[in-house]
Amino acid sequence: MTRVPDEGMILVPGGTLITATPEEGRALAIVLARHTVHTVQPDLETLQAGRARYGGDPLGLIAAAQVVALEFATIAAANGYWR
Amino acid sequence: MTRVPDEGMILVPGGTLITATPEEGRALAIVLARHTVHTVQPDLETLQAGRARYGGDPLGLIAAAQVVALEFATIAAANGYWR
Amino acid sequence: MTRVPDEGMILVPGGTLITATPEEGRALAIVLARHTVHTVQPDLETLQAGRARYGGDPLGLIAAAQVVALEFATIAAANGYWR
Amino acid sequence: MTRVPDEGMILVPGGTLITATPEEGRALAIVLARHTVHTVQPDLETLQAGRARYGGDPLGLIAAAQVVALEFATIAAANGYWR
Amino acid sequence: MTRVPDEGMILVPGGTLITATPEEGRALAIVLARHTVHTVQPDLETLQAGRARYGGDPLGLIAAAQVVALEFATIAAANGYWR
Amino acid sequence: MTRVPDEGMILVPGGTLITATPEEGRALAIVLARHTVHTVQPDLETLQAGRARYGGDPLGLIAAAQVVALEFATIAAANGYWR
Repeated sequence: MTRVPDEGMILVPGGTLITATPEEGRALAIVLARHTVHTVQPDLETLQAGRARYGGDPLGLIAAAQVVALEFATIAAANGYWR
Repeated sequence: MTRVPDEGMILVPGGTLITATPEEGRALAIVLARHTVHTVQPDLETLQAGRARYGGDPLGLIAAAQVVALEFATIAAANGYWR
Repeated sequence: MTRVPDEGMILVPGGTLITATPEEGRALAIVLARHTVHTVQPDLETLQAGRARYGGDPLGLIAAAQVVALEFATIAAANGYWR
Repeated sequence: MTRVPDEGMILVPGGTLITATPEEGRALAIVLARHTVHTVQPDLETLQAGRARYGGDPLGLIAAAQVVALEFATIAAANGYWR
Repeated sequence: MTRVPDEGMILVPGGTLITATPEEGRALAIVLARHTVHTVQPDLETLQAGRARYGGDPLGLIAAAQVVALEFATIAAANGYWR
Repeated sequence: MTRVPDEGMILVPGGTLITATPEEGRALAIVLARHTVHTVQPDLETLQAGRARYGGDPLGLIAAAQVVALEFATIAAANGYWR
């Protein structure tokens, strides 16, 4: 079993929800979602096989986008919507 | 593999959640959802094949509408609901 | 291909989230969800065929109700819950 | 086709989100979800057949409970959580 | 048909969202979700058969956890997060 | 039947939503989700079998990530987003 590297297991990389821009906030949302999956499934081969499967499955891609939308809602509120 | 063009990979086009009108806010919500999918799946052929599949699948269309509803909730809050 | 008429492609008909009553707010939530689907799938025949399918599928009806609930949450907040 | 009676097509019965108690708020959340389904599918026989199907399907029951949870979140916020 | 006992049909047992602790708030979230299911499906045998099915189905368990997360979000906000 | 140990049945370990850092808040979100599943399904063998199944299923992993995102939204709000 090849394990996800340690930095991929950090739940909130950078240790803060505060980002300089919405773009960085959005990128953080994607990372939060991915690293949560790593916590549940730390085996790289299984992750890569799964990635190949849902990467071609529209419902899988939509479900992933939904998680990012939820994470982004939290990060955007944390940053006062970068007003 | 034909990759999504660079502008399609920008997570928050325009770099802000603030829009002049609800209509623009809604359009931004759709773009945020689409560009997140591009980040997960940057291959154009795969995206277009998937688009054809879920475009005719009511549950796929409803799932996509759900993501837009979540993104719009964040953008509407960011804009003070354009009151 | 028969395309959804132009007014069915407007993302936020009326250009505002503010409504006089909760009933109107709820109706707007349903329209926002429907017009988002039109943006993804503008072909009327495909929409009508899909409508017939999920109209008899309890999980499809529940999924549609979920999108309306999310849109209504945004519209209700925009209107101060019509207090 | 036997159509849902008119009162079953009112989107927000009572025309307000404000209720005296959490119990009434919860009942309103269930009605909002049901009447939205009626708007999408007004045919009583189809609704009753669907009801029989998802009433015995745990995932259907959970999905219905999820819609009520979303509607209740909006109604609870509207009522200041009946503090 | 053996019906769920009356106390299992009360939508908000205790008639309030306010609890002394997060633990009680979490327990209330689980009860709200369960009693909503009872409203949709009051037959005990059907519920117990469904419980056995989704109790061994990871996607069913995850879907149930999602409803509790939504209900808890409402209860936590009602209690000012027990700060 | 081997039952989940008692500490795995505590709904909100530590009895508070307040954490020192976002990383701890994220870890709490994962625990809340897991312990809710334990409440629904306390049998360890069933849980472990289910874990093996959804650990290799991308849609299962995404659904789990979605629950964590919802729980984290509540915990982040409780902590004022650790600003």
